[in-house]
Amino acid sequence: MATVRLWSDEDIEKSPRVKAVFEDIRATRKTDFVNNFWRALANQPAVLERTWASMKEIMVTPGALDPLTKELIYIAVSATNSCSYCVHSHTAAARAKGLTDEQYVELIAIVGMANETNALAAALQIPVDREFEVN
Amino acid sequence: MATVRLWSDEDIEKSPRVKAVFEDIRATRKTDFVNNFWRALANQPAVLERTWASMKEIMVTPGALDPLTKELIYIAVSATNSCSYCVHSHTAAARAKGLTDEQYVELIAIVGMANETNALAAALQIPVDREFEVN
Amino acid sequence: MATVRLWSDEDIEKSPRVKAVFEDIRATRKTDFVNNFWRALANQPAVLERTWASMKEIMVTPGALDPLTKELIYIAVSATNSCSYCVHSHTAAARAKGLTDEQYVELIAIVGMANETNALAAALQIPVDREFEVN
Amino acid sequence: MATVRLWSDEDIEKSPRVKAVFEDIRATRKTDFVNNFWRALANQPAVLERTWASMKEIMVTPGALDPLTKELIYIAVSATNSCSYCVHSHTAAARAKGLTDEQYVELIAIVGMANETNALAAALQIPVDREFEVN
Amino acid sequence: MATVRLWSDEDIEKSPRVKAVFEDIRATRKTDFVNNFWRALANQPAVLERTWASMKEIMVTPGALDPLTKELIYIAVSATNSCSYCVHSHTAAARAKGLTDEQYVELIAIVGMANETNALAAALQIPVDREFEVN
Amino acid sequence: MATVRLWSDEDIEKSPRVKAVFEDIRATRKTDFVNNFWRALANQPAVLERTWASMKEIMVTPGALDPLTKELIYIAVSATNSCSYCVHSHTAAARAKGLTDEQYVELIAIVGMANETNALAAALQIPVDREFEVN
Repeated sequence: MATVRLWSDEDIEKSPRVKAVFEDIRATRKTDFVNNFWRALANQPAVLERTWASMKEIMVTPGALDPLTKELIYIAVSATNSCSYCVHSHTAAARAKGLTDEQYVELIAIVGMANETNALAAALQIPVDREFEVN
Repeated sequence: MATVRLWSDEDIEKSPRVKAVFEDIRATRKTDFVNNFWRALANQPAVLERTWASMKEIMVTPGALDPLTKELIYIAVSATNSCSYCVHSHTAAARAKGLTDEQYVELIAIVGMANETNALAAALQIPVDREFEVN
Repeated sequence: MATVRLWSDEDIEKSPRVKAVFEDIRATRKTDFVNNFWRALANQPAVLERTWASMKEIMVTPGALDPLTKELIYIAVSATNSCSYCVHSHTAAARAKGLTDEQYVELIAIVGMANETNALAAALQIPVDREFEVN
Repeated sequence: MATVRLWSDEDIEKSPRVKAVFEDIRATRKTDFVNNFWRALANQPAVLERTWASMKEIMVTPGALDPLTKELIYIAVSATNSCSYCVHSHTAAARAKGLTDEQYVELIAIVGMANETNALAAALQIPVDREFEVN
Repeated sequence: MATVRLWSDEDIEKSPRVKAVFEDIRATRKTDFVNNFWRALANQPAVLERTWASMKEIMVTPGALDPLTKELIYIAVSATNSCSYCVHSHTAAARAKGLTDEQYVELIAIVGMANETNALAAALQIPVDREFEVN
Repeated sequence: MATVRLWSDEDIEKSPRVKAVFEDIRATRKTDFVNNFWRALANQPAVLERTWASMKEIMVTPGALDPLTKELIYIAVSATNSCSYCVHSHTAAARAKGLTDEQYVELIAIVGMANETNALAAALQIPVDREFEVN
């Protein structure tokens, strides 16, 4: 149902540019499984390279937020955008990184509540308090 | 610019139902400052009570996610929904809970990237991998 | 702050096409006041004509839904889209059509709740029950 | 395809907390059928209880808006959010509450038109008229 | 899975109003194939007529933007709204109008990037530069 | 009103990393004016560098789509997301690249229509035609 062809492992062998990215995905994630998102982007090597480079830098490179927290933030955005693919892939990623049932319940509750109060603030057009301003 | 009146402290004194919620907000947050969101909801005591009760249970009661992580998730949803008020109030809340500049940079990067890949997945209509299915 | 010029009453006099629409708006609504939405669309007479014709047919022509219910639906969409202008204009329109405080409170509560459960359904990727299918 | 398990009637029997909510849903709605939304939330008893309590108070308790109007508002939000599950469940609910074909046609037209003019207002960045301000 | 019945060619023969629109769609597009969008709207002849009239005027009538550019804009909106049906139908339409692989890659990249920077601007609440103001 | 400080030209001089990006923006765009978006991202050099590198590659490097078409797509996404800042900045950019009034009118009409039919497709849950499938 994709609007583009999903590249099989055989297809990938034929494009050195795509192959290089897939090898880095596999090495970075320490698994042979590469999900459909990258198999769709393979049709666009420049987008594939740029997206994987950003994803690796943002989500994999150790930083101030731990890997699980990063996935929770990703799920929150994806659910809000109603992105079925992204909710599935990042919920699976969060579970692989140790998401507990208790954490998941709380995440779901916050995502629901935030969308509710966002709508309330929009419906009531509440002005920003001076206390929240930085400059 | 709100579509409803924002209740002043004098207004609040006149409604026992609203006053009870405001006193609990002040006691829970250990500050006299109550932001406009609640002053707008004061027009609707039933919504005010229910929203504060949920907010307290979800965001304040100790659980599996720490208070700062909860605010990061809230900011992510609010930015995705383009909710100016909510971005301001929860960014201020996150800072009050110890958000560092490094954490904030990473949050911003993830929110941007997630919105980008959500759009890519939607544009390409990528089918969910079987590996991500639970049932 | 608009990206186009807002037409004054003098500007409107100079364009017969725009003038005809403005006269119909004033006659239909029985008021001289014409809000900025139409003054911005005046830059694009074809869009102005088509939008007003649809608006009149959908929102003004008597039908199966009463005028106030139509405005409630419009506010619900506008708040969900975070459209500040539309929330303001249709909340004012609803009030002019008799919106009571009790109705407004309930509208706000439903809009909040619907956005919350929409997000829950998206986060949990709940499959549609067979019972809900028409065909 | 849900990211969580959908609870069967047998599963529900084993959790007193979940069972109590399901019994109230069945009693309130006067039907044995309980849709997948609640079977997914059953994994999170606190979210389940809170969501059902709010849903019952907002959508079932008699108030200023009649039950069918409430469903129309719910559908409008759900279509705007592109929430497939919610569109299906609330359209079914509206039909069960007497939605006529004529009303449905008008609802669809308003939802389409509101999304169109919301986008026009956003594209043109139309400033709010002073006449619409409350304070 | 639609919430309404999709009209078959036999159904269409029975309604002169619907038949007239379908004949115009077929004549305008020079093909017998009429996609499901119109078969669903057939349940609402007034919405069908108005939507087709607008679609024809906006997307088919020659103007300042060429037909392919119009489809690219349509895809961009549809991906941002996560509208699966519309992404599919307008990507097919763009291909029929000569979309090349290179153009498609660039479209996808822009849609991704725009959604990313929209989220960054929302998260950081960046004020509009005076240089961008028209009035 | 930003949630971060906007960097002045003096601030920029003090950070070699930020300065290098700003010099490239100025050289690429052939103007001294650098808009607030980049002055906000200056707080996050890594995000600034990555975002500018992508923006330059996607929007500036000559490719299969001409620069004006790219801006039209950007405006379409930004209006759909209700991103005030982005609508302003990219409408200004489109004008600088030669956008005519006729093209702008058509863009606005398409953005409005696409958001309308997206909502109709979502409300009616129209299934994708087999004819639109690639695989």
